[in-house]
Formats: sequence, C-alpha cells, structure tokens
Amino acid sequence: MENCLFCRIVRREIPSRIVYEDDLVLGFYDIEPKAPVHILLIPKAHIASLNDLTQEHSDIMAHLTLVIPKAAEKMGIKDSGYRVVVNCGRDSGQAVAHLHYHILGGRAFGNDFG
Amino acid sequence: MENCLFCRIVRREIPSRIVYEDDLVLGFYDIEPKAPVHILLIPKAHIASLNDLTQEHSDIMAHLTLVIPKAAEKMGIKDSGYRVVVNCGRDSGQAVAHLHYHILGGRAFGNDFG
Repeated sequence: MENCLFCRIVRREIPSRIVYEDDLVLGFYDIEPKAPVHILLIPKAHIASLNDLTQEHSDIMAHLTLVIPKAAEKMGIKDSGYRVVVNCGRDSGQAVAHLHYHILGGRAFGNDFG
Repeated sequence: MENCLFCRIVRREIPSRIVYEDDLVLGFYDIEPKAPVHILLIPKAHIASLNDLTQEHSDIMAHLTLVIPKAAEKMGIKDSGYRVVVNCGRDSGQAVAHLHYHILGGRAFGNDFG
C-alpha cells in the first residue's frame, strides 16, 4: 500500500524506533506513548484491520501472537505485566488503517478499558 | 484445570451466557461489562496467559484471532467498531489466569487505554 503510514515504516521510508523485527512482523515505539513502554506490533503485510482477516492470514496472526511475549520480554515488561489493545473501526479510535497491536507496560492499568 | 473459573465455564459447571462456540474457543458475556457489548473470547484449552504461549498453540491462536470479527459481527459491533483487550500479569489487572480476549463495543473508546 503505497501511502499507508505503517507500510512506509516497514519500507523504512518513514523513520521509527524499531524494537523487534523478523520476516513477518515489525515492532516499534508508538510516537504518542500512553505508558512508560508503548510499542506497536504489526504484520508487515498490509491488513487494514481485524475485520479484514481471512484464512490466508492464519500463519501470520499465529506468529504475531506468539511474538507478543517475546517483545514484552525484550522491553522488560513480561514479568511485571502488560496490556495488549487492538482497535478496530470507528468506535474504537483506530487511527491507522493497518492492523496494529498496542503493547503497553510499565504502569498499572485500570479496569474500564479506556 | 480443575478449579480454573474459565475451564469450569467451558465444562458447563458454572453458567455463562454463551454467544459463540466451536471446538477450540468459547465466547461469553463478561459478568461485569464495561461497555454495552462486552464479551470474553477464550481458548477452551487451559493457557494461563500470553506469557504461556508456545509454538504448539499456533493453530488455536490463529483460529481465535480469526473468530474475533465473526464474534463482533454476531454481536452487531463489527461495523460500528470494537476494542480488543488482552491483559497479562500483575500490572495489567488480569483477573483470571486463563487467557481471555475482551471484545468491547457499543460505545466510543478513549485513547488512554485504561
């Protein structure tokens, strides 16, 4: 996707502070952090949102999910705890139309889910 | 897991309002809803948290992820939007040590992530 912000980050056309990378996924710091640790974990392939997932994305989504605790460990929040948030569509406040998992830690989280 | 609350819900030893079920996952209403629609989607197998995922869970986590938009559609929030939250460990407020994905919709969500 030529003009997708996160696809451009994957292609290094826009700088980001990368914290995890492999063939399928990229993890980088959120530029507007809502916690002491706040990274985004995305599939490198362009998938607009959870609503756009199909069976062909099974492998990538399994892999992305298993990377979450690895990324948390790397950020030093695996043992203290962390919250994962995925927004989808208007009501959620999804800001970029490229599927992204927020991983937040380094503080305590409330139980109202924002 | 004999005494796990969610394993007991899977086994129908504790009642719940089930909204989705297949061989691998169960979806049911959260008993303390934080939004007009608030369900929990869990693997039927006992996995304590994201930190406990291993390669052997790939298929189940891929499946669970692909079920999210299907559950959202069934609850009437697929198009209006929804937030998915997964808590892991102390700081997050994870309340039950059986992996569960909160799916919330029917209202607008803020951007502080709770």
